[in-house]
Amino acid sequence: MAATWPYRYSRRATQLRRSLMRELIALTAHPDIISFAGGLPAPDLLPVAEMRDCMEAVLARDGARAFQYGPPYAPLKEALVEHMARLGVRTRPEEIFITTGAQQALDVLFRLLVDRGTSAVLEETVYTGISQSLISQGARLLTVPTDLHSGIDTDAVAWHFQNGLRPRLLAVVPDFHNPLGVSLSADKRERLIELGRRYGVPIIEDNPYSLLRYQGEPLPALKSLDETGGVIFIGSFSKLLAPALRLGWIVAPEPLLQKLTVVKETADLETSALTQRVVAEFYRRGLMEPHLERVRQVYRQRLAAMQAALAREMPPAVCWSTPAGGIFLWLCLPQGSDAQALLPQAVETERVAFIPGVAFSPDGHSANAMRLNFSNTPPAQIDEGITRLARVIKQSLDLT
Amino acid sequence: MAATWPYRYSRRATQLRRSLMRELIALTAHPDIISFAGGLPAPDLLPVAEMRDCMEAVLARDGARAFQYGPPYAPLKEALVEHMARLGVRTRPEEIFITTGAQQALDVLFRLLVDRGTSAVLEETVYTGISQSLISQGARLLTVPTDLHSGIDTDAVAWHFQNGLRPRLLAVVPDFHNPLGVSLSADKRERLIELGRRYGVPIIEDNPYSLLRYQGEPLPALKSLDETGGVIFIGSFSKLLAPALRLGWIVAPEPLLQKLTVVKETADLETSALTQRVVAEFYRRGLMEPHLERVRQVYRQRLAAMQAALAREMPPAVCWSTPAGGIFLWLCLPQGSDAQALLPQAVETERVAFIPGVAFSPDGHSANAMRLNFSNTPPAQIDEGITRLARVIKQSLDLT
Repeated sequence: MAATWPYRYSRRATQLRRSLMRELIALTAHPDIISFAGGLPAPDLLPVAEMRDCMEAVLARDGARAFQYGPPYAPLKEALVEHMARLGVRTRPEEIFITTGAQQALDVLFRLLVDRGTSAVLEETVYTGISQSLISQGARLLTVPTDLHSGIDTDAVAWHFQNGLRPRLLAVVPDFHNPLGVSLSADKRERLIELGRRYGVPIIEDNPYSLLRYQGEPLPALKSLDETGGVIFIGSFSKLLAPALRLGWIVAPEPLLQKLTVVKETADLETSALTQRVVAEFYRRGLMEPHLERVRQVYRQRLAAMQAALAREMPPAVCWSTPAGGIFLWLCLPQGSDAQALLPQAVETERVAFIPGVAFSPDGHSANAMRLNFSNTPPAQIDEGITRLARVIKQSLDLT
Repeated sequence: MAATWPYRYSRRATQLRRSLMRELIALTAHPDIISFAGGLPAPDLLPVAEMRDCMEAVLARDGARAFQYGPPYAPLKEALVEHMARLGVRTRPEEIFITTGAQQALDVLFRLLVDRGTSAVLEETVYTGISQSLISQGARLLTVPTDLHSGIDTDAVAWHFQNGLRPRLLAVVPDFHNPLGVSLSADKRERLIELGRRYGVPIIEDNPYSLLRYQGEPLPALKSLDETGGVIFIGSFSKLLAPALRLGWIVAPEPLLQKLTVVKETADLETSALTQRVVAEFYRRGLMEPHLERVRQVYRQRLAAMQAALAREMPPAVCWSTPAGGIFLWLCLPQGSDAQALLPQAVETERVAFIPGVAFSPDGHSANAMRLNFSNTPPAQIDEGITRLARVIKQSLDLT
């Protein structure tokens, strides 16, 4: 077919950036490249056999119902009520909303809460799925810094609110931040809830990693501190279980979810009855907790391997975050460095890949930084990859 | 949790209607109600065993890759190139775009092509997924009538275009229309393509049913007549194979699909690697054609049963469409009748259900009509259900 048709594209679509991250991840998916670029769970930890068993059990029990249209699957909602209880969140099935992955959760919430030209507060350096989805709804992005040790700058948030800014929402990744690895301090959690409450700003708590903690005591989910219904929690099975399930969930007040139902119908009608049933069966068999324990054990070692290699290899001017969980670590070169400029040499000469920090900044911050993923690379390769990366960095800093 | 938070909702969300259809379908899902309300494939025709075998083969072969993040699955695109060839559409994998169901296809296309306040042409009586998704993007809906024998009124379309209307798109369901059952005549297909080409209006061909033809010769897909790239085809596996796969596809020029990739990323990142692989395997084993033949055979009988019962039971003032395929039939009471007003009696007294025509009209047309689904009810029950429905209708027309 000819491709000469003069399509006109919407403003929202033309404001979106091509995903530098996706392109990089595709580009660096070669067997001889050690890639810290992606955000993938380790393939050998995906519980293929268990999920196959669950699937067979579901098909034997439910037959065609597992392949048919259907309402959100009640036993999955019930499992998620228990799941949330482990995060300190008391909720009910009516307050659980199943989505086709956490990205859809963000998207339908932004469609529900944001009008073109209204503002939304987000972190200066942030998961691109948050910023891109907000842009596609026409939101004006107002960014606040995130401290590498304590999370989002609540003083900056307070300053904006005190000066009259009333955004439609504030989005934050409180646990094991993507890409920074940082967790929001307990004090700041309380402060953020208080600010949201006082100024009437809903807080979107994007929390896909909270159960992937490798050390220290859990911090309370923002939602667990919420007494007014102003916090909306988003969870995901992509990191806990498997991305291809395309399952996520929202915890929010029931009236909001009733509105959200109609929005989701326009987006994709409904979420797969099949994968919902498989995950409910996975919970029912008590497989989730042992699975997560296995995942935590492996990722804990990988994080430790990366931190040890960094400490050994990196020159003094380089620093990095010290996450207590999650799958990402953030590495900063001296101010003025350009991490993106190192990428061609890293990939072509040293065969090691990362994501430059600018990819996570809607307004061009973090040029001196990079995101390193440690979940998808075994310890020995992490060691080798960091050694290679350190050579590239030292050379760029003229330290060789 | 308290639910007192004063959420502000977006204009786009508050303009959406609660889905009357969904509520009705849920309401009438009782074993003693004969429901013509839904749009479900027959559960006993869902190829559960074959799909389970495909799934096992995929897991045995691909293991964790089937549960991981991944790019659109190339073998599925190749299968769809062949699939499209059977509809007379010559295309390439680069022109195929996989979506999480056909509803998502509509939604991401509208996000790409429509700005708030711009107009879109659609049929006066139409699948609500089209109208609702356009409304949620802020489109101004401009509706044209659809003739029950020949499809969308191309003269009305021409009149609008000649008078200067330049909508961002025109959406049409050419084959076995939902809810009308009508197919667009061959002449009108040519005319529509010509109008789109002359006035630069892209045509969205929403075509989930084209392979479900029970009599007569296939009409050419609009896309097969398109020499300029101005037609965008949407297909779905929900009716061909199984809804819970949540798989659909788009055929469109490559440059448009590159833009669409970024839009889809904001919507749900990507479509399930698992279900894509299962369907590709289903094609690879040559199961699709025999499966479709089985489906056609059963639905053909059900359509015939409904038509025979209607001819026998309905009073002369009632008429209905005579679809050559698909899963819906449209029944019209005399002008001035109110089909929705019959519903309580139909459900409560006669235990038979349908969807009132107004549910499909963004601007309140079709109050005298109703949609009847025949795919999900065996012939004997269809016969009984139409008998019951005729009693309700005759009583309302004072013919008892």
